[in-house]
Amino acid sequence: MCRWMAWSGQPVLMEELLFKTQHGLIDQSLHSRMGAETTNGDGFGVGWYGAGEGPAMYHSVAPAWGDTNLRELAAHIETPLFLAHVRATSGTAVQQTNCHPFRHGRWLFVHNGVVAGFHQMRRELMLAVDPDLFADFHGSTDSEVIFRLALTFGLEEDPVEAIERAIGLVEETARKHGIENAVQASMGLSDGVRLWAFRYSTEGHSRTLFASTDAHSLRQLHPDNPRLQRLRDEDRVVVSEPLGELPGAWAEIPEASVLIVQPGGDETLPFRPHVEVPVSA
Amino acid sequence: MCRWMAWSGQPVLMEELLFKTQHGLIDQSLHSRMGAETTNGDGFGVGWYGAGEGPAMYHSVAPAWGDTNLRELAAHIETPLFLAHVRATSGTAVQQTNCHPFRHGRWLFVHNGVVAGFHQMRRELMLAVDPDLFADFHGSTDSEVIFRLALTFGLEEDPVEAIERAIGLVEETARKHGIENAVQASMGLSDGVRLWAFRYSTEGHSRTLFASTDAHSLRQLHPDNPRLQRLRDEDRVVVSEPLGELPGAWAEIPEASVLIVQPGGDETLPFRPHVEVPVSA
Amino acid sequence: MCRWMAWSGQPVLMEELLFKTQHGLIDQSLHSRMGAETTNGDGFGVGWYGAGEGPAMYHSVAPAWGDTNLRELAAHIETPLFLAHVRATSGTAVQQTNCHPFRHGRWLFVHNGVVAGFHQMRRELMLAVDPDLFADFHGSTDSEVIFRLALTFGLEEDPVEAIERAIGLVEETARKHGIENAVQASMGLSDGVRLWAFRYSTEGHSRTLFASTDAHSLRQLHPDNPRLQRLRDEDRVVVSEPLGELPGAWAEIPEASVLIVQPGGDETLPFRPHVEVPVSA
Amino acid sequence: MCRWMAWSGQPVLMEELLFKTQHGLIDQSLHSRMGAETTNGDGFGVGWYGAGEGPAMYHSVAPAWGDTNLRELAAHIETPLFLAHVRATSGTAVQQTNCHPFRHGRWLFVHNGVVAGFHQMRRELMLAVDPDLFADFHGSTDSEVIFRLALTFGLEEDPVEAIERAIGLVEETARKHGIENAVQASMGLSDGVRLWAFRYSTEGHSRTLFASTDAHSLRQLHPDNPRLQRLRDEDRVVVSEPLGELPGAWAEIPEASVLIVQPGGDETLPFRPHVEVPVSA
Repeated sequence: MCRWMAWSGQPVLMEELLFKTQHGLIDQSLHSRMGAETTNGDGFGVGWYGAGEGPAMYHSVAPAWGDTNLRELAAHIETPLFLAHVRATSGTAVQQTNCHPFRHGRWLFVHNGVVAGFHQMRRELMLAVDPDLFADFHGSTDSEVIFRLALTFGLEEDPVEAIERAIGLVEETARKHGIENAVQASMGLSDGVRLWAFRYSTEGHSRTLFASTDAHSLRQLHPDNPRLQRLRDEDRVVVSEPLGELPGAWAEIPEASVLIVQPGGDETLPFRPHVEVPVSA
Repeated sequence: MCRWMAWSGQPVLMEELLFKTQHGLIDQSLHSRMGAETTNGDGFGVGWYGAGEGPAMYHSVAPAWGDTNLRELAAHIETPLFLAHVRATSGTAVQQTNCHPFRHGRWLFVHNGVVAGFHQMRRELMLAVDPDLFADFHGSTDSEVIFRLALTFGLEEDPVEAIERAIGLVEETARKHGIENAVQASMGLSDGVRLWAFRYSTEGHSRTLFASTDAHSLRQLHPDNPRLQRLRDEDRVVVSEPLGELPGAWAEIPEASVLIVQPGGDETLPFRPHVEVPVSA
Repeated sequence: MCRWMAWSGQPVLMEELLFKTQHGLIDQSLHSRMGAETTNGDGFGVGWYGAGEGPAMYHSVAPAWGDTNLRELAAHIETPLFLAHVRATSGTAVQQTNCHPFRHGRWLFVHNGVVAGFHQMRRELMLAVDPDLFADFHGSTDSEVIFRLALTFGLEEDPVEAIERAIGLVEETARKHGIENAVQASMGLSDGVRLWAFRYSTEGHSRTLFASTDAHSLRQLHPDNPRLQRLRDEDRVVVSEPLGELPGAWAEIPEASVLIVQPGGDETLPFRPHVEVPVSA
Repeated sequence: MCRWMAWSGQPVLMEELLFKTQHGLIDQSLHSRMGAETTNGDGFGVGWYGAGEGPAMYHSVAPAWGDTNLRELAAHIETPLFLAHVRATSGTAVQQTNCHPFRHGRWLFVHNGVVAGFHQMRRELMLAVDPDLFADFHGSTDSEVIFRLALTFGLEEDPVEAIERAIGLVEETARKHGIENAVQASMGLSDGVRLWAFRYSTEGHSRTLFASTDAHSLRQLHPDNPRLQRLRDEDRVVVSEPLGELPGAWAEIPEASVLIVQPGGDETLPFRPHVEVPVSA
């Protein structure tokens, strides 16, 4: 059920991470090791920050491993921050409007996981979306509903709180319908400056999600690796499954937490879905 | 904004009408003469009754004139009743789930036209759809909303009344929003036995829609035309623009009316959109 | 590197074999057990005999497992003889003209396997094709070259001899170029009446290929299986990997042989590629 | 039969010329005024020079007017030199490998026009291509054959001479087959530094092709047009049909000539197809 990755750091050609890395995301589209499905061939998307107004997106219904255009774009677009996503549908149509990332203004959002019983709850959850955001529903996925719920709950002001309320509402609605283990989610979010990586599931047993450890340590650990020597301190990769098998290179993002990659120092916060009033209140 | 056609009668290969007829629907996709747009290249679809359970559909986002598969299917599928539709989007995504016909059980539905101000009314209209039908929204068109509204209002029992109520609700909602000339619609509907062809617009100036005149007269008018001599009395074509330029072959379906093609004799009824209580009550 | 199947027998809806059978071809597109690749997601095709002139084809670049149209067609097209193919490209473009089956007049051809060193030999092999057949090259696969070579060598008169000469020429050309193990091929061929299933490789270690054993025995072996009780004596399935796991249901087609399914009794012949003069001469 | 454009000058977002200009190329895809066909909806492509190694390409079989990805890329890719092409097929398959530009190393090539009797000559012309270039034939168009012939004749050393010999060979071959008016061609070519725009037809009545006049004059002619005031002296557009209707802005490229846009001063040369030995010898 999908794999995704994000890069934040020095400008790179996207192919460096998508194609030229051992077990990169495109390889994961064909041979996922840790996913619920080994094949993620139901379309893909990339979103990046660079030239022009706001983030750009490229979506395709072709499998990522065989898409000639993706190979071209990845080899010729340089960016300091991008998100990429390969999809394994849990039933909704294979169409570009169901491909991630989803975008709103400067914001990009990707999701790996599933909302259990979504079919039953779809109407109720869509109704909870701000009417002004309703007409812009382009696709039919649970992921887009989560994103628009989060926008409804103030994503642009307080992203973590907004996602917590979006997931909280889904869980609350599921409870009313007697649906168990409603949410399974690893999610990526960016405004072009910061990058959020969420890992959460109702059952407390979430899809894998990893972040690269700090570049300084990596360079010291592997002084003979020219690729790693080029890494700068601000470079960070987040990905569903580790790229390559380098000891010390990857740290699992903990259950029920969110990693924030940002200028001035990354941080990891607990992620606690709730309804309306914050749990801590 | 779209062109469509329907056939009801003796079993034919679909290509007879789609490709081998002068100014057939595929030609109309490239060179429409009477449409709001000359090009209808934003996908297409056909639905037919034949082998297997219920009607079949083939949808594609390619322009109909260049789709190799359509040419193959049309040349090898024989059917006594089919609907075909070429699309010119008024803004919604070019994707298979937005291609006509739409289907529910044994029912197929196509629509040429537009709901003015749909973006503003989308949420309200979707909410009026039976919750049990809501989760099956696959695409994002106004046409699918009209179809699901009609299903909500009893399409399977009384199709004309249901479509009248669906259009009536759209008009009523538009009035509340101060939207003028809300509906522009020529619509086709079938259950595999009967065929309904609706022509209506709020402003009383609807898109063109024609039906072939009775086969008996045609054969007498053109005794030397072998194609027409093969026509049987029950054969009937409905189409946005006349195929060919044969004198006496086509009759315009009147404003605000519905033609019902059916065993035992066709009939034309007035079409009067209304809310809840029938206008005649 | 591709999987394929063929049906010859009583008329069936294609979905019976493609979707409703345990480990059917569509499942093999996602989870091949015996192929060189587990995923066959680089397009697919079906060809069938039925209404209209000659065989029909449907080709798509989408993965077979997710193609809505394939599901529709399979559920609504009934045919006594069809071939289906799911593709895993060995490098050539993912495009409809590279999807199998290939067609010429009443003939359909599918191929699973690869020509080693094809890139080097492509020009030479294409030059050996009858100039009158050259202009009809639509795609860029080795498979299409084999098919056009066989047509050049009299496929329509003596299919086995023609395929033997086509493969023989490829092997001869490879020898000149110092290419080892030139051909790896399981191939299906039909004229709408008979069905040929070839299994061959230069190295004598060919891709798997199975045929269903005779219906009479199957019914006796499994008297309680309603599906098998419906089988008629003339029904035959050929497939890259057995459907289901029924004891006694499948016989491997031997190395270097061809099974001919035909009215009046099937036969298996040796398959001996050669150049010009038949080996037996 | 196709429309194309090229930009050489200051770095711009491609959308400036493709979408934001009056009667830009995307509009020409739907409403060509001067082409042999009004609709150019059989796929499209763009090629550009920028980040990464060599030129990048994006090809699609969708009509350019409706392709969401093209709109995204055009709005977010900045480049000092690009070629764009919208296709109306003269019969060959609608597939990405038949979309322009074609690429070899640093070179990009686009073609609007047709080779008469190509079907008859295809084999002979393909045989004239350098065997080392043969295996890289990806598509089935006459345009790709012209490009590979020109590469065979030294395109990378002397582009004008090479294209003259390629066209010369096509004309010579056509004469042998008794085909009249063999070539109809407006062609664009670039190596990332220079831009060549060819206009030629055997009959001496070629498809239209225009170049923007010099920026200095344009600024003086239209002192109040802010868009034109931003133009720099090195900026040049070549296009099948003028963008907008600005007096003085466009000069037709003469029959049988080639415009070379290059640093240090553009030039226009006669274009004289010939076989082997230059006509001037």
